[in-house]
Amino acid sequence: MARVLMCKANISEGRRKEVLEEVAAAVRAVPDVTLADWSGDPDHNRAVYTLLGPPEAVLEGAKALTSVALERIDMATHAGEHPRMGAVDVVPFIPLREVETEEAVEIARSFGAWLGEQGVPVYYYEDAATRPERESLPKIRKGQYEALAEKLEQPEWEPDEGPAEFNPKSGATVTGARFPLVAFNVNLVTDALDVAQTIARAVRHINGGYRYVRGMGFALEDKGMVQVSMNLTNYTKTPIHRVLETVRSEAARYGVAVAGTELIGSVPLGALEDVVRFYLQTHEFSTDQVVETALLD
Amino acid sequence: MARVLMCKANISEGRRKEVLEEVAAAVRAVPDVTLADWSGDPDHNRAVYTLLGPPEAVLEGAKALTSVALERIDMATHAGEHPRMGAVDVVPFIPLREVETEEAVEIARSFGAWLGEQGVPVYYYEDAATRPERESLPKIRKGQYEALAEKLEQPEWEPDEGPAEFNPKSGATVTGARFPLVAFNVNLVTDALDVAQTIARAVRHINGGYRYVRGMGFALEDKGMVQVSMNLTNYTKTPIHRVLETVRSEAARYGVAVAGTELIGSVPLGALEDVVRFYLQTHEFSTDQVVETALLD
Repeated sequence: MARVLMCKANISEGRRKEVLEEVAAAVRAVPDVTLADWSGDPDHNRAVYTLLGPPEAVLEGAKALTSVALERIDMATHAGEHPRMGAVDVVPFIPLREVETEEAVEIARSFGAWLGEQGVPVYYYEDAATRPERESLPKIRKGQYEALAEKLEQPEWEPDEGPAEFNPKSGATVTGARFPLVAFNVNLVTDALDVAQTIARAVRHINGGYRYVRGMGFALEDKGMVQVSMNLTNYTKTPIHRVLETVRSEAARYGVAVAGTELIGSVPLGALEDVVRFYLQTHEFSTDQVVETALLD
Repeated sequence: MARVLMCKANISEGRRKEVLEEVAAAVRAVPDVTLADWSGDPDHNRAVYTLLGPPEAVLEGAKALTSVALERIDMATHAGEHPRMGAVDVVPFIPLREVETEEAVEIARSFGAWLGEQGVPVYYYEDAATRPERESLPKIRKGQYEALAEKLEQPEWEPDEGPAEFNPKSGATVTGARFPLVAFNVNLVTDALDVAQTIARAVRHINGGYRYVRGMGFALEDKGMVQVSMNLTNYTKTPIHRVLETVRSEAARYGVAVAGTELIGSVPLGALEDVVRFYLQTHEFSTDQVVETALLD
């Protein structure tokens, strides 16, 4: 079975179509890398490229993308709604299939070391962070590009790679590794917002719930319902089915039923393995049995 | 999203490794076809090759495989335990992803017409059958290779393609199209065989159950349990979850619980889509959201 690492490269360009195409072409020219998706947003003036493939190939793909972006983007003239600090702004590497987080961290560090050698200050975040206060992207990016020159003079913001000098054209890059998120919402047959908020507190880590759940309660006013909106940050350790059954059981104490759920955006096949095993009671099922996975070889 | 047709080519050779390798190499040389799996069985003196890819590419792969097998296998000297009628014995085409049964039938008919031109009598079966009495493989293959010369003289066994003449080297080939089977077993916490047999009758088509279920009750003596062993012949119309929930509900009337289930062998991703949608109540979920499917492009 093929090993798959994902890279979601965020660059600070969302308007010049020829630049976006050139970046895409650079990725496509790298052997064994699939450019699964890319899109630019003119308001944010930002684009996201999704690369899939074996770890070393994805590293090469990220370098190829970065080389074009660094050449073609000048942060000194960049404006857009989305927070950003560099031409190649954020580059997370995400283990998808038979890749451990440790290996994704190694790839992120190889990418960061290479990028530092190009003269770009680099910060490692999430699982690749070198200290706890650099785990969070918003903390690293606080003040954005405009505050970067001053930030680089502070010892606590010495970059993990590259020079501690302001590079006006390229800014700075944040790279690292993280487990794939599963965005999972549960809609409840009630308009009582406090029910959703109470259940969100019951399941989320910060209030004593599951370790890998972040969540909030929302009103869905057009539906007359409420929603427990969650991010599962490690589906192998806090699986989808367990969270759903806990929400269902907590809702039942108020006489409230589950109207439906939503899996938002992309979902790793591995996250569905546990769903199938739990609900079908197929104790031995493996996603290796899924016929289409043979195409990943 | 890539379209995927599967072909499971069964050939009458399971002992000469060099022949099996040569057949595999012929498939691998065809662009856009993935040889997902192959294995030979010396006792059966038979091998199965699983080809995946876009329909036209899989057709070319099946032809390439067949050319080598026809050249290298002589049925006049073939012996083995498995029923067989030809060097290239059975070649089903199975729609997996964004391919309709009708298109799989067309591909099977193109393959059969081509094979007939090579001088091999061809019978169409399952969804490609030209008459009801040719739908079933065992009926077509009855009497096997040894009865073929005599069979070809009977008007009712005039082949669908190719000459109505016995070809001693190649025998005859059965090809066609069928929906992918899901082999699904449910184990019950009881040693009462009649419970499993009664439930099998409740869910299988022949006795009034679901249209696309075949099934039997078995004793699992080493486990002290019984099993409802089923084939789901169209998982889109009779989905896994519905069959499981019916078995569960019928078992409950005897106070019997489901101990676990088994999905045997390969499972199309599409068959799991309904499992996820039903049990998670994710009404909008699609397998297109599965990250790895982006690699199928």
